[in-house]
Amino acid sequence: MSIRVGIVGIAGYGGGEALRYIAQHPRFKLVYAGGESTAGTRVGDRYPGAPGDIASLVIDKFDPTSLNNIDVLFTSLPTGASKEPLAEVPSHVKIVDIGGDHRYVDGWTYGLADVWPEQIKGATRIANPGCYPAATLTPLAPLLAGKLIEPSNIIVDAKSGVSGAGRGGGDSKFGYAECNEDLAAYGLLKHTHMPEIAATIDKLCGSSTPGATPGASSGLVFTPHLIPMTRGILATIYARGSASTQQCLDAARVFYAGRKFVRVTEKSPHTKWAAGSNLAFVSYACDPARNLVIALCAIDNLGKGAAGQAIQNANLMCGLDEDAGLAAAPMWP
Amino acid sequence: MSIRVGIVGIAGYGGGEALRYIAQHPRFKLVYAGGESTAGTRVGDRYPGAPGDIASLVIDKFDPTSLNNIDVLFTSLPTGASKEPLAEVPSHVKIVDIGGDHRYVDGWTYGLADVWPEQIKGATRIANPGCYPAATLTPLAPLLAGKLIEPSNIIVDAKSGVSGAGRGGGDSKFGYAECNEDLAAYGLLKHTHMPEIAATIDKLCGSSTPGATPGASSGLVFTPHLIPMTRGILATIYARGSASTQQCLDAARVFYAGRKFVRVTEKSPHTKWAAGSNLAFVSYACDPARNLVIALCAIDNLGKGAAGQAIQNANLMCGLDEDAGLAAAPMWP
Amino acid sequence: MSIRVGIVGIAGYGGGEALRYIAQHPRFKLVYAGGESTAGTRVGDRYPGAPGDIASLVIDKFDPTSLNNIDVLFTSLPTGASKEPLAEVPSHVKIVDIGGDHRYVDGWTYGLADVWPEQIKGATRIANPGCYPAATLTPLAPLLAGKLIEPSNIIVDAKSGVSGAGRGGGDSKFGYAECNEDLAAYGLLKHTHMPEIAATIDKLCGSSTPGATPGASSGLVFTPHLIPMTRGILATIYARGSASTQQCLDAARVFYAGRKFVRVTEKSPHTKWAAGSNLAFVSYACDPARNLVIALCAIDNLGKGAAGQAIQNANLMCGLDEDAGLAAAPMWP
Amino acid sequence: MSIRVGIVGIAGYGGGEALRYIAQHPRFKLVYAGGESTAGTRVGDRYPGAPGDIASLVIDKFDPTSLNNIDVLFTSLPTGASKEPLAEVPSHVKIVDIGGDHRYVDGWTYGLADVWPEQIKGATRIANPGCYPAATLTPLAPLLAGKLIEPSNIIVDAKSGVSGAGRGGGDSKFGYAECNEDLAAYGLLKHTHMPEIAATIDKLCGSSTPGATPGASSGLVFTPHLIPMTRGILATIYARGSASTQQCLDAARVFYAGRKFVRVTEKSPHTKWAAGSNLAFVSYACDPARNLVIALCAIDNLGKGAAGQAIQNANLMCGLDEDAGLAAAPMWP
Repeated sequence: MSIRVGIVGIAGYGGGEALRYIAQHPRFKLVYAGGESTAGTRVGDRYPGAPGDIASLVIDKFDPTSLNNIDVLFTSLPTGASKEPLAEVPSHVKIVDIGGDHRYVDGWTYGLADVWPEQIKGATRIANPGCYPAATLTPLAPLLAGKLIEPSNIIVDAKSGVSGAGRGGGDSKFGYAECNEDLAAYGLLKHTHMPEIAATIDKLCGSSTPGATPGASSGLVFTPHLIPMTRGILATIYARGSASTQQCLDAARVFYAGRKFVRVTEKSPHTKWAAGSNLAFVSYACDPARNLVIALCAIDNLGKGAAGQAIQNANLMCGLDEDAGLAAAPMWP
Repeated sequence: MSIRVGIVGIAGYGGGEALRYIAQHPRFKLVYAGGESTAGTRVGDRYPGAPGDIASLVIDKFDPTSLNNIDVLFTSLPTGASKEPLAEVPSHVKIVDIGGDHRYVDGWTYGLADVWPEQIKGATRIANPGCYPAATLTPLAPLLAGKLIEPSNIIVDAKSGVSGAGRGGGDSKFGYAECNEDLAAYGLLKHTHMPEIAATIDKLCGSSTPGATPGASSGLVFTPHLIPMTRGILATIYARGSASTQQCLDAARVFYAGRKFVRVTEKSPHTKWAAGSNLAFVSYACDPARNLVIALCAIDNLGKGAAGQAIQNANLMCGLDEDAGLAAAPMWP
Repeated sequence: MSIRVGIVGIAGYGGGEALRYIAQHPRFKLVYAGGESTAGTRVGDRYPGAPGDIASLVIDKFDPTSLNNIDVLFTSLPTGASKEPLAEVPSHVKIVDIGGDHRYVDGWTYGLADVWPEQIKGATRIANPGCYPAATLTPLAPLLAGKLIEPSNIIVDAKSGVSGAGRGGGDSKFGYAECNEDLAAYGLLKHTHMPEIAATIDKLCGSSTPGATPGASSGLVFTPHLIPMTRGILATIYARGSASTQQCLDAARVFYAGRKFVRVTEKSPHTKWAAGSNLAFVSYACDPARNLVIALCAIDNLGKGAAGQAIQNANLMCGLDEDAGLAAAPMWP
Repeated sequence: MSIRVGIVGIAGYGGGEALRYIAQHPRFKLVYAGGESTAGTRVGDRYPGAPGDIASLVIDKFDPTSLNNIDVLFTSLPTGASKEPLAEVPSHVKIVDIGGDHRYVDGWTYGLADVWPEQIKGATRIANPGCYPAATLTPLAPLLAGKLIEPSNIIVDAKSGVSGAGRGGGDSKFGYAECNEDLAAYGLLKHTHMPEIAATIDKLCGSSTPGATPGASSGLVFTPHLIPMTRGILATIYARGSASTQQCLDAARVFYAGRKFVRVTEKSPHTKWAAGSNLAFVSYACDPARNLVIALCAIDNLGKGAAGQAIQNANLMCGLDEDAGLAAAPMWP
């Protein structure tokens, strides 16, 4: 029997990617599409390649109180716009919030699905990780859990494609003519994703170390960069520890044994390997003589960094195979 | 029960895209991967995102006489390299040649799947249409069949992404630094795809007009352009006829009624609508007062222009649903 | 002695490119920068690479009545915003309007500088050609003047980089994530540049043929396309005539003899050849047996298609060398 | 009077960019072009936009003993190909080697022109800095000279456009279809530019600290990344020190006072700000409470990272203004 799902924010990049995964999902059936400026139009007007039954769905003006017949709701709204309406969604509706408003607040479960799948299975309210945190925490989790690096001295140099800025923008700084052939760091020392990464680092340390010092992550440095490509995030992470490359690779392989979406590779990962998929490619390069661990992770910011992970979380909540709807291989080239 | 399939030329762009579709196909199981320079390596070395069972397959040096256990073979070899070896493939093995060597020669069936599906169903040797011909013929077929345009006065201005040049190249003219921020026409008045387009135009005219003059297509003009993008072809076609826009749209809707991969749209089609899919988007803009018909078609050159159409052809040959393995929505953005 | 120049619309792409040429001009000195939203900021805030003296100039809220001390004014304002204010500029100030409001209206001289330099020398009000018209008319002028093609049967398939849409937009359809890896035609049968092209075709026919039928251009077809690159226009033009390739090349070489910015080439021209310059590359490919002439032209839409031609026009008006400030070679790759 | 210059390796990206700067140089006159595969062709065949006099120059097969009439020679040859032939160049010919073979060997002067201009003035053999070292050392020099950071704990996360790989390649990994929409780190812990950076760090420390420990740079970490853009390098550098952002900015402003090509900015620098120019944009972001200094530098890898710096070095050697031929503003967008 189908599981009835809805997407709020269908016209945005996260919502559109959720739609794409749902269209190929064996159990999820899209019965509701909510939007703001696009309300009243058909999904197919926005996504001319959507399958016929989804294409003919009419986008509703989002009203959280009208969702009684939905089993799972994916929400992808601008920052600040989720908290109030989602509080009114009937409690029997499972929610995965792709937006950032519920991360580490209000008791929502943090949906880092490859790390804490068991906690997600029992949840009904999931805060989906941000794209930068997903790329950062996936390679760090095995190292932190295994105490292979110092949590207080982590530098994350992260690079993202432009779709990470969302669709609403329309700012000329995200325009083709200005992003193309350009590259810059932004949000130096104050990017919005830092607290989420820091909180999860603390949690990852604490989970294996009862009584760990709060604020283990106090030395975290996070520098995001805007890259002239549509999709993809690469996190290059510099940490301190004496483990060898092989020890880190092994630790990750053990940590993620049985997980379907994390691939530990000896080669330096490329973002394109993950294009259109929920995969995360993780690698390490270490120089024990200098106490140096470099961790790398490549994802699709709209896949593992947004909608892919959201579908994975919904699968876990619904008791389905973790990779239902997510098994297609990435697109290359 | 699985249908056992093989890919020859697995390391190229056409072969890799066939692999991607096969990986999500409900009946096809990849049991053979043939290559030249990559022989001896695993498929997963080349495609780090390939599903596990496919990734572990070892690439064989292609030997056409060793394929007794294969049901369907997809071949994607450089021009000129297919004819001899494919003649040695056992006759019970169905072949779809994505390369160009068998188009309109040796009695192979021309696999324009949305136009002549019935002919393909009974075939065992399919010459898959080239990428430019697929983009050109899809919007023209309804007009030619319906005699809405003059076949002798057709100008095709076609634009292709760089993956159309194949992977082997390695020529710096296909290098990133030189293709990026560049645009040019090439092969003026002599592109290799012209005879295939011309022959099909003649066939399309003849099919509805017994006794049609041979060489109806003698006025065909075809100008390809190289566009700084990886995937996608847009064909902008100028023809002469007095039909209105609505008449052309209607003719295409009737002609392609029941076909799953051709979408007739009123909006000017974007190549990105088709990214990663087997879809073709077709539209028309006419000015009857000036006897002008503009036909437009957007495809993914590796989808409908190569591997997507090849899978569709194989589905038809095997008596499967035409869209088996091809139902996933395109990737956007 | 310096010639005092001003730019209105300094924050836009056309204004910024004018600034770049002026910065390397031997005689022009930028003394005035006018803007709207950027008024009050320094030019260097917007263009961090601008030379020091220009960088420190403060942008004024544009007031056309305050320009008594300017010798030449370049204006690059949104469509519709130029006519009223420019009517108030003191008559002794020479104006080159890069925007479209004065083309073929109000008696302004049409600044197709490589075709009609003599007319420009005596003018004080120049309507600078649009980017598409510049790319279209440059290769056509020799053919029309020499009666080598039929003026009534011209099809222009034009392709432009995204900067052609201007900076103001901020529409997500010009955003990086949506333009990248995409290609589409737009404005089918009704693009705003058609009347300008048609009027000039008529003029070009008439200039060599007193009493030519008005509306010689009535069959003109013009189809613009948006290409995923920042700069560059390629016009691929299909016309009817029995001239050979060599005859067309020769005609263009004779027509443009002594002109510094039009290069007639046997190779198919690339837009990248012109990047950052005022050059136009022109070529032809003909099939006399089929009465076919293909004309090609590659330019930088912000160079010959906007600010480069504007500087050239100003040079002509001021009695300077045509290439003052414009002699730098294009950037490659 | 003209200074007679030659370029060896004219067909490569570095050689081509040197040509572009020389074409607009007030004193340098290109009289010699040397190549290998392009010998016998004209410069204009390779660079259709080159000015007429340069375009007509015929490329010679490089013979180092035939250069008696040259004053300055720019060489841009593949790694390993420079040492032998350049040893045979007559000693009165000044050489700037854009390639890497003479950096910190054979007594050639290291041409970090904005840091050690005086040493360059008297030299006749200059090893031009690599592109990554230029981007790394420019922002570090003021900090190291002023002892604002620990030299032994520097992490350089560097990002380069694809032209940095040179033109010879032709490897499909630098092909458009594979680089576009992709991003990866490479050469982890062993990139070829590390020794050059390390040696210069040592020198920078030593120059202000007689008796400094050799190997001050032993902790250097350098991670290059390939970015889908043609030009540009951004270096994001993490160092340890208690200086404030303002102190670092001030130190750089003092250190580079009077230098024409280094711009110290408060905004995070964009590579596009430098496109086509010899400029380097330098900025800093510090968190003294965490002993953290982030240094940033954006350059054009073919400008300050190669040919721009080479021209600057040649200007210094010839006693010319440092910015002769280099004064044009960068191209934007």
